[in-house]
Amino acid sequence: MCIFCSIVKGDIPSYKVYEDENFLAFLDISQAEIGHTLVIPKKHFDNLLEMDDETAKGLIVLVKNLAKKVKKSTNASGINILNNNGESAGQSVKHVHFHIIPRYDGDDLVMKFTEHKLSQEEFLDLAKKIRG
Amino acid sequence: MCIFCSIVKGDIPSYKVYEDENFLAFLDISQAEIGHTLVIPKKHFDNLLEMDDETAKGLIVLVKNLAKKVKKSTNASGINILNNNGESAGQSVKHVHFHIIPRYDGDDLVMKFTEHKLSQEEFLDLAKKIRG
Repeated sequence: MCIFCSIVKGDIPSYKVYEDENFLAFLDISQAEIGHTLVIPKKHFDNLLEMDDETAKGLIVLVKNLAKKVKKSTNASGINILNNNGESAGQSVKHVHFHIIPRYDGDDLVMKFTEHKLSQEEFLDLAKKIRG
Repeated sequence: MCIFCSIVKGDIPSYKVYEDENFLAFLDISQAEIGHTLVIPKKHFDNLLEMDDETAKGLIVLVKNLAKKVKKSTNASGINILNNNGESAGQSVKHVHFHIIPRYDGDDLVMKFTEHKLSQEEFLDLAKKIRG
């Protein structure tokens, strides 16, 4: 059984922030920063790429509104909205979820990567490949 | 002048991946991973929190569809969807944008943070504060 489906059913407790017929928001048990909240549709989708348009639309409006509440109530100066799809992207629970992560000046969250330098021709080829 | 508004106007060139009346997608000039794409509404909003619902809905459906195209065309095994709001959250251009970042097994992108441990009471208080 999917752990987030169990939370929806109430079989596993959660620190709820919001609930309606279709969506649920609760505190991430692993708080990247204080106020770190997860927003999920109650219906199971493995990830965003498999979600239907109507659910995605409802979800993003809720994420936006909750992000404002999280920011205000925590006095954060910024907010990251993050959605991971697939294990290599850091998705640990295979039930689509959006992270709302409040950010504070000088906090310790770091996103680190090595920039991949491309030539103009490589950029053009890549854009063409994605356009399909 | 906002740099993304200049890209929308065509005053600054970009490697376009998608364009319609309301939205534009182009390759991030700083490729965190190969295929890193930005999706923006043509209309200027500073960030997601200030965006109207209709634009947010259109944007997330486009992000979802482009994420599938990026994943397929790059043979990525995962996708991060990231939206930064505010300087402390890493937002460098103040025109709302969603990052689509393809992920590859064993790539070098790392999101690092120190988990903030909370007691059950602290979790309950925090959830209550956010619910308002």
